[in-house]
Amino acid sequence: MNMIIEAWILTIGNEIINGVITDTNRETISRELRSVGISIKGMSSVGDDIPAMIEEIDRAMRMSRVVVVSGGLGPTEDDKTSEAVAKLLGVELTLNELQFERIKDRFLQWGRPMAESNRKQALLPVGSEPIPNDHGTAPGFMIHRNGSIAMFYPGVPRELSRMLKEQGIPRIFRTFGQPKSIFRSQTVMVYGLSESRLAEILQDVAIDEPGFHLAFLPRFPVIRLRLDVSGDDVRAVEDVLSQKLSIILNRIGENVIAVDGQGIEQVTVGILRERNLTLALAESITGGMIGEMVTRVPGSSQCFMGSIVSYSNDMKTSLLKVSEQTLQARGAVSHECAREMAIGARSAGFADIGLSVTGIAGPDGGTPQKPVGTFYVGLATPDDVLSRGFLLPGPRDWVKTLAATQALDTLRRWLSGIRLHGTEL
Amino acid sequence: MNMIIEAWILTIGNEIINGVITDTNRETISRELRSVGISIKGMSSVGDDIPAMIEEIDRAMRMSRVVVVSGGLGPTEDDKTSEAVAKLLGVELTLNELQFERIKDRFLQWGRPMAESNRKQALLPVGSEPIPNDHGTAPGFMIHRNGSIAMFYPGVPRELSRMLKEQGIPRIFRTFGQPKSIFRSQTVMVYGLSESRLAEILQDVAIDEPGFHLAFLPRFPVIRLRLDVSGDDVRAVEDVLSQKLSIILNRIGENVIAVDGQGIEQVTVGILRERNLTLALAESITGGMIGEMVTRVPGSSQCFMGSIVSYSNDMKTSLLKVSEQTLQARGAVSHECAREMAIGARSAGFADIGLSVTGIAGPDGGTPQKPVGTFYVGLATPDDVLSRGFLLPGPRDWVKTLAATQALDTLRRWLSGIRLHGTEL
Repeated sequence: MNMIIEAWILTIGNEIINGVITDTNRETISRELRSVGISIKGMSSVGDDIPAMIEEIDRAMRMSRVVVVSGGLGPTEDDKTSEAVAKLLGVELTLNELQFERIKDRFLQWGRPMAESNRKQALLPVGSEPIPNDHGTAPGFMIHRNGSIAMFYPGVPRELSRMLKEQGIPRIFRTFGQPKSIFRSQTVMVYGLSESRLAEILQDVAIDEPGFHLAFLPRFPVIRLRLDVSGDDVRAVEDVLSQKLSIILNRIGENVIAVDGQGIEQVTVGILRERNLTLALAESITGGMIGEMVTRVPGSSQCFMGSIVSYSNDMKTSLLKVSEQTLQARGAVSHECAREMAIGARSAGFADIGLSVTGIAGPDGGTPQKPVGTFYVGLATPDDVLSRGFLLPGPRDWVKTLAATQALDTLRRWLSGIRLHGTEL
Repeated sequence: MNMIIEAWILTIGNEIINGVITDTNRETISRELRSVGISIKGMSSVGDDIPAMIEEIDRAMRMSRVVVVSGGLGPTEDDKTSEAVAKLLGVELTLNELQFERIKDRFLQWGRPMAESNRKQALLPVGSEPIPNDHGTAPGFMIHRNGSIAMFYPGVPRELSRMLKEQGIPRIFRTFGQPKSIFRSQTVMVYGLSESRLAEILQDVAIDEPGFHLAFLPRFPVIRLRLDVSGDDVRAVEDVLSQKLSIILNRIGENVIAVDGQGIEQVTVGILRERNLTLALAESITGGMIGEMVTRVPGSSQCFMGSIVSYSNDMKTSLLKVSEQTLQARGAVSHECAREMAIGARSAGFADIGLSVTGIAGPDGGTPQKPVGTFYVGLATPDDVLSRGFLLPGPRDWVKTLAATQALDTLRRWLSGIRLHGTEL
């Protein structure tokens, strides 16, 4: 049997539809189901409102053979999911003695008294099948209706994801059989091309084929390309993935940061460590962001000496030895200053490579000659010193993030022997 | 007229239903609508699949008078929302010349060539009303059907939220009138108390009353408390809000960072600028994160001199003048080193105040005496030098974030004349 099982995900709670919390249970459920070959038809959320729940559960069960619901099983007045399900099925709620014992046991184990309200959590719709909760108090339950199943789980993320994996997915397979579908995916990180330019370059590759999908996922300022391949045969699936991947890498070339979802900081630290090179930074416009990014990578202390965040001109001259003359004649935001900062970083940090950034993040500080977004990156290596200038768009946080990424990408390109593009400024 | 307007929110994209991205547009739309008194009936998401979109748009428009849709208006093959709407209405797509001109203008303004694929973004269903996009390329549009409206927006969060506020909400009011219900909310930022401790302290205040709701919204490592008050009468609503707020502020006291949703970096920069004080940093464990946080605040260059990110011991001795003896006898992660780093930062940065952090972020580098998470903050002021030690929990990124927040909170408390708690280490 190799049929496709489609699922609908429903999350319940006023705090969800009112935008008070970011509901991540939907993504958790989606990923768990997809990892075993179940595809997702859609998702929805309603508040703690019985008529809305009844309508939504009913509809979801008509549309998909599997419905996974989370939320509304807690002990409080707000939690009305079991009641809604009982109304939908036209049955009563009844105390499930076994599940009630489990709840009592759990409180004993915690050494805490059980509140009377927790008894409510063992009230299940007549005819439903309990789904035991080994990680919290509220049991889940499953119902059958017109050839579909719906499973109800507590909204506590940790309990939900374990119950779904340990109890829910086996129940789906017992009911509908296990899908034979194989699923592989790969993420390519791209920096230096706009989304629309990328879409043009990959126009023919991006067309959906049965079992293949290419998604464009911008995560500012990087674009992630996600290749999803599915099918019956492991070999065929992996062949399609490697074929498509090689076309894409060929087309995008040097703008590819990584093929395994790594960020620019991981890639850069990786090359530095591999080549046994050390790095020191001189940051102005980024305020420390490049150092923060680099030190996200475990083991970065092997190659990262430090950063001199010289926001004031005094620190530029005293610590980085930028000349007074450069500051006066060219200004702190200039090719010359970026180069002197890079040299200063290399020397003050006792490092092989010095990387610097200077610019105007805004909202104030721009002039007609040097508007907000004016930005220079400097690179000092054992043999050479260079600088590049750009005009970065957007508000302050964008400009900072773009500046940090542009600097690390300049270093990545230099380390990889890629010719650096001419500067804009 | 004081009728309730109910809205349904629909987000579109395979990456959403497949759990590849966390969809925060739903919450953004919900909050924008609720802030003007529109209530939310529910939310759903479907993939880039025309039949699924048609079904979901049709259903949402039957259930709610206002439907807000985001996603699927980009330039790529995946973006099929306009096509789905045209099919639903039984009309063609046609090029909207005015919107096409606006897209071309935007590329001119950016100084970048427009890709052919961007033309697609100006193809709108015949009979729909364009919603101009002043913040990006894709225009939105609005349709009417059986007494309901549906509005379609691009999925780019920044464009979506501005377009909804500036263009969408006025269109809803023009169609259905403005709801009279008054809605006020306030956000209190708390640092230094656990969520369960906070829940205990506020147990009686947290009980829902008609028109009042208190939400606990942890945003690591800060907890946001959101007070929502609604009702018919402005005066009564504002009275309830200020009453509840003053009870909460009284109970939490010095652990309140701000009452207007400001972060610790905004509050700290605000006090420094008010008092005309300058700050320099010496960062080790945080890698530049504190400088990055401080420079998020526009105008921070008025008080922030810079940061010496001394990851290597060489930089600690050469730039911060930490003594060799301290490093050998006490180590780089110690009260003594933190104090010398703070003094060094103050002096190297020519600043009134020096703030330093040193610690072990992990996953490697811990010892039985100084496990991962060991962390010291130092503060050097014109009159005094002090240090505090903590053991911070969690993985590398948590430890860094906690260290940065703890350092800024130490400074905030000192600047506000709050007695600093004894150190843990």
